[in-house]
Amino acid sequence: MTFNRDKKILIVGLGLLGGSYAMALSRKDYRVRAITKSQATLDYALEKGMIEGGSATVSEEAVAWADVVIFGLYPHVFREWIQSYQHYFKPGTIITDVTGIKGDFVREIQGMLREDVEYIPAHPMCGKEVSGVENADDKIFIGANYLVTPTEKNTRQAIELCRDLGWILGCYRVVETDIDKHDEIIGFVSQLTHCIAITLMTCNEKEHLEKFTGDSFRDLTRIAKINDVMWSELFIENKAALLEQMKEFREQFEKLEEMIASENVSEMREMMQRSTARRKLFDK
Amino acid sequence: MTFNRDKKILIVGLGLLGGSYAMALSRKDYRVRAITKSQATLDYALEKGMIEGGSATVSEEAVAWADVVIFGLYPHVFREWIQSYQHYFKPGTIITDVTGIKGDFVREIQGMLREDVEYIPAHPMCGKEVSGVENADDKIFIGANYLVTPTEKNTRQAIELCRDLGWILGCYRVVETDIDKHDEIIGFVSQLTHCIAITLMTCNEKEHLEKFTGDSFRDLTRIAKINDVMWSELFIENKAALLEQMKEFREQFEKLEEMIASENVSEMREMMQRSTARRKLFDK
Repeated sequence: MTFNRDKKILIVGLGLLGGSYAMALSRKDYRVRAITKSQATLDYALEKGMIEGGSATVSEEAVAWADVVIFGLYPHVFREWIQSYQHYFKPGTIITDVTGIKGDFVREIQGMLREDVEYIPAHPMCGKEVSGVENADDKIFIGANYLVTPTEKNTRQAIELCRDLGWILGCYRVVETDIDKHDEIIGFVSQLTHCIAITLMTCNEKEHLEKFTGDSFRDLTRIAKINDVMWSELFIENKAALLEQMKEFREQFEKLEEMIASENVSEMREMMQRSTARRKLFDK
Repeated sequence: MTFNRDKKILIVGLGLLGGSYAMALSRKDYRVRAITKSQATLDYALEKGMIEGGSATVSEEAVAWADVVIFGLYPHVFREWIQSYQHYFKPGTIITDVTGIKGDFVREIQGMLREDVEYIPAHPMCGKEVSGVENADDKIFIGANYLVTPTEKNTRQAIELCRDLGWILGCYRVVETDIDKHDEIIGFVSQLTHCIAITLMTCNEKEHLEKFTGDSFRDLTRIAKINDVMWSELFIENKAALLEQMKEFREQFEKLEEMIASENVSEMREMMQRSTARRKLFDK
């Protein structure tokens, strides 16, 4: 199953990510509609040509129109939506999402879903430190990694369709991984980094620090502007994996504190050399 | 005393920063020479028009030529240089530096310096994660903060001259602060961020993480490519202030761990809101 232009795409939730999907897909001439709770959001997306139509309420007509449904909702809203409205899906509908946590959440959604509808979990590794459809921007996908996390419930066809979606959006690398490994890795590369940024931003309350700041500090705290509703939910949904990653980070940080306290230059240099070599792998 | 073009400038140590100073000043038609230990470095700088001349050895002729001497050396090399060669300075010479730590180090240099030569400590808040004159780039100064840290030994004239230098380089903000406050702030905004980046880069040894990484992780680890000789020295020279900042960071990080473990959403959101508001102050 490839992602042809005869597939009609419904986006549920036109926020920063949902809006960026709509923009990317409409630009490439796919048929895109949306369901989102605010009429103003719909009007904006229509005016900008991000969607061909949409609705601020959920109806069978709006949902059954689609071959593919992409959920751009917070995890608990996505869960409630499926419970309330899944009877509207057309048989054979493929659904996917943008949710940065998977694991138990995916098992739960797949467990409650109708047999004739398939949920293939995925998300791109990109975003912005602002939210809302007016900040949507399909350039965020360019060069990003796109992660697909199938389970034993998924068919090869739906996996291929979802991988295709990643390429169509403009991602440079599409990676398949299992959901538990995914959560551990996301706990590390995404959630831990946000924890560090907000800690750094709030651990020293001195005024006027901006006058002394260089780019290092700015880089480490770019993501300290954070959507508190979304991220507190994501942290809790992935609590076990995240806490494990935080512990490993803290233990390594404490080792560095000891090296500095004891002026152990050789250990410090060895750690810095390891850091330098490893960081080179992550250049885009 | 303003930084007129009749001031002859000697740069000692043509590394990344020394080279960038040379580039910025020569571009603006100042007379710049250098002393640096490698002939190849000198040849490179001459060929690129960064200096009008220079020497790979230290001589009275080379040193006494200058009205202003800018030291681009590691702290312990700077200290040794002053001990060995300060008798070569012309009376009335103003010296300054690019050293990111001040405090006791400044007191030591000023304490050993001839009475007829004045050391005005300063440095720009910028750099690169690579070293060497071939990476010199005067664009690093554009928009940076430039810090001047006078002591009671400094004259107003030398302070003004040094402030002028910051503007001439292209910095957007020139800030004066006392040396102890400086070290505390630098411990926080610069050294702590490097500690965090190298910890993050070395606390999880899993392979192929780059396939899953987004820009957040890349931003937080850009500076994890680090000059191990220089930074291990800077950490130790500023040990007390840095360890205090590391402790404050770690304690705040532990609070966040507790919030996540106990699923305390309201505290987490409050911390994220504080983080978001505070980060806005640091936009360039």
